[in-house]
Parts: sequence; structure tokens; C-alpha cells
Amino acid sequence: MDLSSVMNPKSIVLVGASTRDHTIGHDLLHRLIDYGFQGDLYLVNPKGGVLEGREVYTSVSALPDGIDLAIIAINAKYMLDTIDQCHERGIKGIVVISAGFKETGAEGLALEKALTERVHQYGMTMVGPNCLGVVNTNPAVRMDGCFAETLPRRGDIGFVSQSGALGGGILNILKDLGIGFAQFISIGNQADVNAASAIEFWENEEDVHQILLYMESILDPKAFRKLATRVSKKKPILALKAGRSAAGASAASSHTGSLAGADKAADALLRQSGVIREKSLSDLFSSAKAFSLCPLPKGDRIAIITNSGGPAIMATDAVEDFGMQMAKLSDETKETLRSFLPSAASVKNPVDMIASAPLEHYRRTLETVIADDGVDMILTIYLPFLGLKDTDVANAIMDIRAKHPEKPIVGVFMTTQEFFSSLADKNVTVPFYMYSEEGIAALDRLNRQRKWVEKPEGRIERFAVDQEKAKAIIAGADAESRDTLTTKESIALLDAYGVRVCRSALAKTEDEAVAIANSIGYPIVMKMTSKTTSHKTDVGGVRVGIASEEALRREYRDLIAKLTERGLDKGLEGVLIQEMVKSSREMVCGLATDPQYGPMIMFGLGGVFVEVLKDISFRIAPLTDQDASEMVRSVKAWKLLEGVRGLPRAQTDKIEETLLRLSQLVTDFPRVSELDINPLMISDKDGEAIAVDARVKLAKA
Amino acid sequence: MDLSSVMNPKSIVLVGASTRDHTIGHDLLHRLIDYGFQGDLYLVNPKGGVLEGREVYTSVSALPDGIDLAIIAINAKYMLDTIDQCHERGIKGIVVISAGFKETGAEGLALEKALTERVHQYGMTMVGPNCLGVVNTNPAVRMDGCFAETLPRRGDIGFVSQSGALGGGILNILKDLGIGFAQFISIGNQADVNAASAIEFWENEEDVHQILLYMESILDPKAFRKLATRVSKKKPILALKAGRSAAGASAASSHTGSLAGADKAADALLRQSGVIREKSLSDLFSSAKAFSLCPLPKGDRIAIITNSGGPAIMATDAVEDFGMQMAKLSDETKETLRSFLPSAASVKNPVDMIASAPLEHYRRTLETVIADDGVDMILTIYLPFLGLKDTDVANAIMDIRAKHPEKPIVGVFMTTQEFFSSLADKNVTVPFYMYSEEGIAALDRLNRQRKWVEKPEGRIERFAVDQEKAKAIIAGADAESRDTLTTKESIALLDAYGVRVCRSALAKTEDEAVAIANSIGYPIVMKMTSKTTSHKTDVGGVRVGIASEEALRREYRDLIAKLTERGLDKGLEGVLIQEMVKSSREMVCGLATDPQYGPMIMFGLGGVFVEVLKDISFRIAPLTDQDASEMVRSVKAWKLLEGVRGLPRAQTDKIEETLLRLSQLVTDFPRVSELDINPLMISDKDGEAIAVDARVKLAKA
Repeated sequence: MDLSSVMNPKSIVLVGASTRDHTIGHDLLHRLIDYGFQGDLYLVNPKGGVLEGREVYTSVSALPDGIDLAIIAINAKYMLDTIDQCHERGIKGIVVISAGFKETGAEGLALEKALTERVHQYGMTMVGPNCLGVVNTNPAVRMDGCFAETLPRRGDIGFVSQSGALGGGILNILKDLGIGFAQFISIGNQADVNAASAIEFWENEEDVHQILLYMESILDPKAFRKLATRVSKKKPILALKAGRSAAGASAASSHTGSLAGADKAADALLRQSGVIREKSLSDLFSSAKAFSLCPLPKGDRIAIITNSGGPAIMATDAVEDFGMQMAKLSDETKETLRSFLPSAASVKNPVDMIASAPLEHYRRTLETVIADDGVDMILTIYLPFLGLKDTDVANAIMDIRAKHPEKPIVGVFMTTQEFFSSLADKNVTVPFYMYSEEGIAALDRLNRQRKWVEKPEGRIERFAVDQEKAKAIIAGADAESRDTLTTKESIALLDAYGVRVCRSALAKTEDEAVAIANSIGYPIVMKMTSKTTSHKTDVGGVRVGIASEEALRREYRDLIAKLTERGLDKGLEGVLIQEMVKSSREMVCGLATDPQYGPMIMFGLGGVFVEVLKDISFRIAPLTDQDASEMVRSVKAWKLLEGVRGLPRAQTDKIEETLLRLSQLVTDFPRVSELDINPLMISDKDGEAIAVDARVKLAKA
Repeated sequence: MDLSSVMNPKSIVLVGASTRDHTIGHDLLHRLIDYGFQGDLYLVNPKGGVLEGREVYTSVSALPDGIDLAIIAINAKYMLDTIDQCHERGIKGIVVISAGFKETGAEGLALEKALTERVHQYGMTMVGPNCLGVVNTNPAVRMDGCFAETLPRRGDIGFVSQSGALGGGILNILKDLGIGFAQFISIGNQADVNAASAIEFWENEEDVHQILLYMESILDPKAFRKLATRVSKKKPILALKAGRSAAGASAASSHTGSLAGADKAADALLRQSGVIREKSLSDLFSSAKAFSLCPLPKGDRIAIITNSGGPAIMATDAVEDFGMQMAKLSDETKETLRSFLPSAASVKNPVDMIASAPLEHYRRTLETVIADDGVDMILTIYLPFLGLKDTDVANAIMDIRAKHPEKPIVGVFMTTQEFFSSLADKNVTVPFYMYSEEGIAALDRLNRQRKWVEKPEGRIERFAVDQEKAKAIIAGADAESRDTLTTKESIALLDAYGVRVCRSALAKTEDEAVAIANSIGYPIVMKMTSKTTSHKTDVGGVRVGIASEEALRREYRDLIAKLTERGLDKGLEGVLIQEMVKSSREMVCGLATDPQYGPMIMFGLGGVFVEVLKDISFRIAPLTDQDASEMVRSVKAWKLLEGVRGLPRAQTDKIEETLLRLSQLVTDFPRVSELDINPLMISDKDGEAIAVDARVKLAKA
């Protein structure tokens, strides 16, 4: 989406400009003037007159032609008329600050729909309604069209906030932290412009180097995924998605009137799109600071330089928590350090220069360590010590950073707030943090972005499958108005899509069962398949480990008798006779459909552990090969799949293929709304992954 | 330990007082004078003369009698002489600032030992060596005997820091955050005074209301546990224990020269002692602020009041993360709120007063919500909005806090740093935080302390056991110089201590095996037991599911043949024939011995999952009944034990008893250094917990 008319306007009209203190129209007017908008500014208020020395037009209709952007802060009931007038005057960019739309109920929703329709019909681009406004700090624009408390600071961030008030709070904090931004969009009800449009626009905005998102819901997940996946390879995208918990999600939906999708789905979507998800605002800001001031590292080996052991230990803890590595310093590096550091110092990583380290030791140690090829990133810790000033140490670090721009350096300064406040007004070139964990967390984000950039692009493969057979199975269920497939149908559907299912055949009589079992070979599994009962295990409809014909006949008769007794013989299709897979590792995979995010594929540890251990990963369909590979490796049970205690390594490429085939199935047949393969057994013999049971639900046609 | 002479001295001598800038002796002198020590201050320096208008004694020997405390900052080589002289002059309190002891190597260690011996012999109390000093902010004392950068602020915290430099950094930050303290001890090498002594002393110091610890290692874990368990019931104890990771622990031991025990053990110890463990300094400070300003709540039901949805959603997420509850507001409360809040407001929890909420709405909403019996704690969120000042809202909250001192209230103010800096100098009565997560984390700590205070004291039960039999088994292994018990011996040892083991007997011949199996009943398990091979499974020495005499004879011959072939028949005691327990849930329990913390008991999910899922809990022995109950409930597999998918509830009281019996075993026989019961099978029949295999290792006699 081209947001130029909104974000880079040459002329703006403020509709609803006001002289009354503490009104939005008043605040906006002063923000636009005080920040020094570089283009022409027009004002509209029905009262007319003069405001701040400018003529006030009594209506939009009275304006000259050729204005780029209208920022509108008037009662919602006048909105449609005003938009019509904007159209007459050829205005293409619209920012609707006013509330009174979707967030207020059915009537507001109808008004918002009408507004959006008109905006689309007129070919306009609209931010809002119900938002805080937009900002562009580019010196050629200087637009502060936003009623936050403080004037913005220039920087390299593109920032989208869904929550208006929170967006304003964030702008305050950013300024305090000395973090500037290039552009800010408060998307409000996101009737037209949303996070995805901003990402698309910022892809080619040269002064936007990273993108920050505060979201409560992700509208148009498909567009978001497509754009974010592409743009995040060039510019880091960081997101705080609130409403993680079930309780939080309910708060989210009462707040924004939006459907807060399941957090698992949102999490998967962000992950697949290369978006770094932050769990708190302070993490979001810490990371943004790092991306503003650091290059991406070449690897994850971290060296720590310190004048105190304690914070270095905490930093080392954090390095391990994040799964990064402590760099091994070369012998040469250690020798050089030894040549000038006192004997009580430690020249291993973390390099502890001890409390008395003078400024010169900081300089030389940093220069020595940064030259070590085994070091990708550096954390420098400073604790106040007699006579050594924090600002001097900070300047020394920035000097060395200027000489070695290729490696990330961050500073952890456990000093006074004054130090940080003073930094906020300066052009610092190294991110400084108060605590070790913050510094290491920042390096972790740089490292994650590196890994994402280095990762090959995912491909969506198509396998040769029997689509006709699948269609027939679904049609069969539809013909009987069933939304649940039988076990036999479910397994046949998987088979049609090339999923390895256990060998099995349907028996309708005892003798048929025996004939099939004899051809498969004992032991076998016997399973009822029914059009009415999908929870087979609960009614005793699954018998495993049947070792002989004699046992089979006995179990068969018993099963039929029990089912008949309970009246469950009605929907019975017959009895499946299956090969018995010897397996010590039961996995689960399947698919579920989220009302907002669409179909998701699931994989993890199966059996009784599914609900208890929740060792499960999700990804939004369609899956790329990269998604499938990550899914399988991101569960703890991965170690089980690699082979433990004499069990062979699982054929993990085949597991990945199974997930990809499920993804293809739901892409071809979106009506497959739920599917469970539980268990997906890993054969003890050769590690093959075999679906031994399946349940499929269809959405209404 | 009575630390009065150190912490509440009426007279102090500073040994090593100096005029030279940027020396410790100079800094200390000025701290003591500038902060206004209320007693008599003497100075010692071999050069004599006059310093700051005070006579300088040329040696300790030259001092008058009756001085309480010597703070010593001189070269370590003069230390022993100086201590002798202190003794001559009757000085009982010693703070050794000087470094050059254990931390520098063998020679320093010897010097430290000599110093400590002398201190004990003279009946002195010593803080240090290698420390930052001590502080007491009590107006009757006003001792700043510490070379940190800033003068201390009065408050209610007793703070112990192991790291000197970090302790100084922390004092800076605390001051910036407006957090004061009552007493501070930098324990340094903790040759005499350690964290446990401080806890003991502060138990009865009236102006210490909470205790903060920064530790890299816990010396004397037994004393620590005993004292902390008692004192934490009266005063919250918060600890940051660094060196969590393997890498961090190695940094810790190179830093302090202390043995950094396994972090699992430290974690268990802190948990059992009622100490709240913090993972970062910022968490530590946030929690301290809450304990300073809030009462303990009566429950965990939280109400959130806000003028913006976003931060309320994040707070709600955090409430769920911490396992607390969102309060359900009464109909009466909601009605009252509805009567004055605008229609766009939400009167459910979180109560969203919307952005335009005036000061009066904050007041009335807070007063209404705090009166609701279903609310235990309140989080109030403020985001800047046109014309509403942060300080006004803060004052309104403090007014209401004064009227309702019984319920904790915290504020989350997403406003400028200026607001927080201005608070630091005032006497605030409500803790304010910048971010929602911080506010909820603070409430979580209050809630945890409440639960700990409410929890019954743990009791250590003794069971009737066959100690003689256990002694004989160990003696038997000793007689053969074995440190590993055979499977048979291991099971017998458990049996002697009343652990339910599976029925089993030893067969030395095929016919004996058959006879035993016939009496137990098929299917049975056959297991080799050997004096030389303890990893039975790896050599094929375990055969399960033997269903008939015929199969048994076949497997028996095969086993013996295979073992003979591999030369493993040498140490073979025979073959155990065991009942086969049908179990879908395999747990693990056992004990391990940490060199620093002593024996620990372990419990969790067993089988192939032990290493992969690490769903395991540890506690230090001896276990109380409370410990055992918590252990069993703190693993995720607890849900499995409660009964899933038709499996009966496990007899969890019996599992707890098993853990308590293991604890008694290792208490009676500390030589049992390792013990594994893997698996501890939960019978599918009746949920009984049955040990079916065990391995025991003995420490050297």
C-alpha cells in the first residue's frame, strides 16, 4: 500500500482545529506548528476566524484543491460528509483521529463500514478511525500529527501502534530512553491501513531501518505473513503482541472489538514471518536500541569484559539461557591481555579486569578482544570505582566502536540514572543498559535476526497426491451429512495424500478379520470404525497386541457383543485389522483451524503426554520446508527422535514430509477443519513414522 | 550470630585512614564523617599526624580501650599483627576491607585461614576480608563504613552482598530508585560473617523489615536453611543467586574462589527455606519496593484499573503467567462503577475508564474496587492524557492507600522518567512501576510471601525401618570393596527402608527361575544382577513380558549364553525373577549428593523421558512432609498422576512417603551418595507406586 499521501504530505488540512485547551483539535494544531511541518498547513472549523495567525476555513469544501492529507478530529456523525468533501477537493490521504466507530458497538460498526467503503470507492488511504495520529520526523517533512505528550525525536524506527493511548505512552518512554523514530502510525481500528500496509510501505522508505509493532490482533494474517516474511529479511521487525493469555485475550477483545485470535496461532505466524516477538515493552525498547546502533553479528560467540565478577556471572547465565555461546579467546588474545592486566585479573572469558581497572585497561582490553576472530559480539560491563567516570568509559567504548564498526558492542553500566538521562540527549553510538540480562537479551535479538537473514527462504512443495480419492471421501461423508469421517475414511484420506499409514483392511465378519490378520501377520491391532462413534478408545473399541487367530476370534466376538450391548453397533462400518507397530515413541500431529488465522499444523509428543506436557509446536498453513524442519526440531521430544537408549533415529525427513502433506491437504481442501494423527508411531525397528489412527472433522460445506 | 559490635558500634577505629585521593582509606574516612557517624571515630595510620582535624594514632596499640569496631583497609601482610593489636585493645568487631586473601590463591588462602583462626580464638566477629564494608542508616548510628559512590538512603531493608563492586553498584541503583535500606553488609570472602549470620542478626533488628541477598555461593547451607526457614516467616527474604548456568557457575568459581554448588541444589535450598529467588537485579529491586510499601494480601485475586486497554491486556497476560487470578467484581461494584463511568468504559475487570478519565474517576473507581470483598490486590494503570498530571494521579492513589492500608495497591505509570526521578526524593507510600509486567511481578512476590507465611511448618517424620539390614548390605559391599550395590542388594536396601519394591527373588539356576516364576505368576520380568555390570539394559540383561514357563526357559538360556559369550558371567550374582507391573506411567526418583549442598532427593517423569524432558524436581535432604508434597506437585507430570484417560489416580501419598523414606535413608547412611529408582512404576491397576529397578552407589567409607 502506498502511504505517501499520509506519511509524506506536502500539505495538510487539520479538520477540527480548535483553540480550546485540552481538546484534541487544539493539541494537534500546536503539535503540527511546534514541530515545524515543512509543507502548507490549512485549518478547518465551522466557526471560521483566525487561529495562530492562520485563516480558518469553515468547511473542507471551502479549501483550495491539491491538499495531500486531511487529519480529522471531529464528531463521528459528521465524518461521512467530511470524507465526501475531501473527495471533492481531491484529498487522498486521510487520518481519522475521532472515536465513535467499531469500538462503540453495532451502530459505530455500521458507520465505520460506510466510512471505509467510501474511502475505498474514492481511492483514498485512511489511517484510523479512533487513533492517535501519524508522525514523520524526516527533516524534509517534520509532521507531528499526533496528540501525544512530547515532541518526537528523530531516529530510524518505523513504529505501528494499535492502541492509541499506549502508543502515546510509548512515545514518551522512547524519548526518555533516547530512542528516536522515523515514522509513527497509530492504526486505531485499522479499517484501511494496518500493520501489513505499514510494513509494505516502509520496505522502501530509506530512513526506516527497523519496524516496531504493538498489536492486539493481526488483521489479514495472509498479507501480514507475505509482507513481513519479505521485509524482515531486509529490516528487522519487532512485535509486541498483547493478549497472550486466555484472560488477556478476552480483555483484548473487549477493548478493541477485534477478534483476538488464539495466541498460539499469532505466535506461529510471527515466527514464520521472521518477526521477533517481544514479551514486554522494556524488551521491545532494549532490542530497538540495539538494532539502531549495532551491525548484525557474524555468529553467536560472546565475549564479556568487566571490572566486577558479579554482573559478568549474571551475563554468563543469560548467554546460556538464550542458547548462545561464550567465546573462547585465542591464546594470543590471552597473552596480550596478560601483558598489561594485573595478575589478579582473569584473562579468560569473561575477562575480569578487576575493580581497580583504569580507563586505559578498558581501551586496551576492548581493542584486544574485538580483534579476536573467535569473538562475534562484546558486552562491556562497568561498575563505578574510585575515580573512574562512567562517561569516560562510555566514550572510550564509543571510540573503539568507531574503529571496529563490524562487530556489535553493548555496554552494561550499573551506574546512576543521571548517566542514562544524559545519554538520551546525546548521539550515542553504542547501546548502554543498566543490567547484564538486558545487554545479553539485546545481543540475542541481533543474533536471532542474523539467523533469520541467513536462513534459506522456505519453499512450498507440492507432492503428487490422489486428489480425486480425497474428494470422493469427503463427498461420501457429505452425502450422509456427517461432519466427522470414520476411522477408515480418515486413514484412507491420509493415504490418498501420501501419508504413511499402517497396513490395514476392513473386516465385516469374523472370518474376514482372520483372513486379513493372517495376511498381515500377528500381532495385530483390531479397531472399530463407526459413523457415529469417533472416540473409539473410550468405548473399548480398540484392542492391541492380538497375537494369534484364536485370540483374534475371541476379541472379535467380545467387541461385537459389547458394542451391541451398548447399542453402538448401529453406525458400525466394520472392524479394521491393522499391523501392530512396535513403538516406544508416540508422537502426535494434526491440524486445527483458527477462526482468524486459518488452518494451523501441529506436531509434538503424543499419547497420554499431549495435554500434560504440551510439548507441541504450531505453524500456520501452508507450511514451507523450513517451517516443517523447524517444527520438528523445536519440541523437546526432538532429542527422542534423534535416538535414545538403543532406539534408532526417527526418519525425521519423513515426519517433515508428513507435515507438509497435511499442509497440502488443508490447502486443497480447506473444509478439513480438524485432523488428529494420534499416535504417529515411530517404529522401534527402523524409525519410520507411521500413522496408526486418525480423526478428521469437516467444516460445513 | 550477634553482629552488634559490627553493625551498632558506639565507637569505630578506621585503620588505614588516608589523605590521598582515590584511595580506599580516604574514601572511607569521608564516608564516615560525611554521613555523620553518631559515635566516636578514631583513625590509625603509621604516619600519624592530624586528618580532618582529628588526631591520627600511629598504631592500633596506641588507641584507648573500649572501641567497638575496627574497619581495616591496609596491606594484607600487616593484617595478623593488626588483629593481635585489636585484641589487646579489646576490640570485638572487625571489618576487613583489604583484599589479598583467598581470592588470590594458595598463599592468600593460608593467610585468610590464619586470620579467621585468630578471629575465632579472640572471640571477635569479622566481616570480610575483601569486602566493601558495612552501613547502618539508623539515626542513632549513622555509620557509612563503605566505599560506595553515594551516601545511603534510609529504609527498611537489610542487604547482604557477596560481590563487593556489585554491592556498590546496587547501592547506587537503589538510591536512584528511591529505595532505602536499614543495614548493608558486604560479606566479601565471608570468612566469618556470611548470609546466614546476617539473617540471624536481622531477625531481631526492629528496623529491618525485609532481607535482600546477592549471592554467588551459599556457605554453610544447613545453617542457612535453618535460619532462613525461620526468619522468612517473619520477614521476606529475597535472593539473587548468580551462577545459574554451567558456564555462569564456572565464572562464579573463578571469581570468588568459592565452590559454586550445582544451581539445582541452590534453587531447592532457597525454595525450602522460604526465600524468594529473583533472576535479575531489576526484579529484586521491584520486589523490594513492593515489600517496603505494601501489606501482604489475603489472596491472589487481582483487580486492574486503567485508562488504556493495551497495558491492561499486558497486565492480564502477566497475571496468568504467574498463576494468579483476575478478580471477579461483584454486581454491586459494577453497578456503582457504571453509575459514574462513561458508557464506553468497561466495568468488568480490567476496569477500563477510557483515555479521557479525569482524576475524579481514578479516585472513585479505586475506592469502589478496593471495597469489593472479591479483590485482594489492585494494579492501577495511568497513561498520560490531555491535562491529567501523573503526579496528581499518584497523589490520589496514595490518599486512598492511606485510607485502605489493608490491601496492596501498586501503580503502573507509563510516563516520563522525570516522574520516577521526582518520586525517588519523596516519601511515597505506593510502589510505582513503568511497565505492567513489573507491577504484576511485584504483586506475585507479595502473594508468594503470603502463601509461604500461611503454609504449615514442615515436619521431618521418622518411619520404622530395618536399619540393621541396611547396615549389613552396605557392609557386604564394603567387604568386597565395591562402591556399587548389585540390583539385588539395591532392591533389598529399599525394602529395608520400607519402599514398596516389586515382588522378586533370586534364581541361580534355570529350575530355580521357573519355580519362582510359577509362584509369582506370569508374565514376569527377568533381570541379571551383577557385582561388575550395573548397566543391565545396555548388555541385554533385562527381559520383560515373559509369558510362560517355556518362554522363561528359552530366555534364561539365551541370557546366560549371551553373557558368557561377552565374558559378563564373571560378576553375575544370578537372575532376578520379578512380578511384571502393568504401568502406563513411569516415574523416577532418587538421590544425588552435591559436594557443597549435600544429599538431594529427586522426583519426576521417568523412562526415556528423564533426560529429554527434564520434568524433575529436587529438594535438599532431609525432606519435610511439606517438601515431599511440593516436589510431587511441582512437576508437570503431576497431571498424569492425578489420573488421565482411564488410568487411576496414583497413590501420591505413597509416592511422597517413598521420597521421605529415601531422605531418611540418606540421613541415616550418608554414604549412600547416589540412588536411582528408575522406573518407579505407577500400577495401572490401583495407582500403587512400585520400585522395579534400583541402582545405589556408596561414597568411600
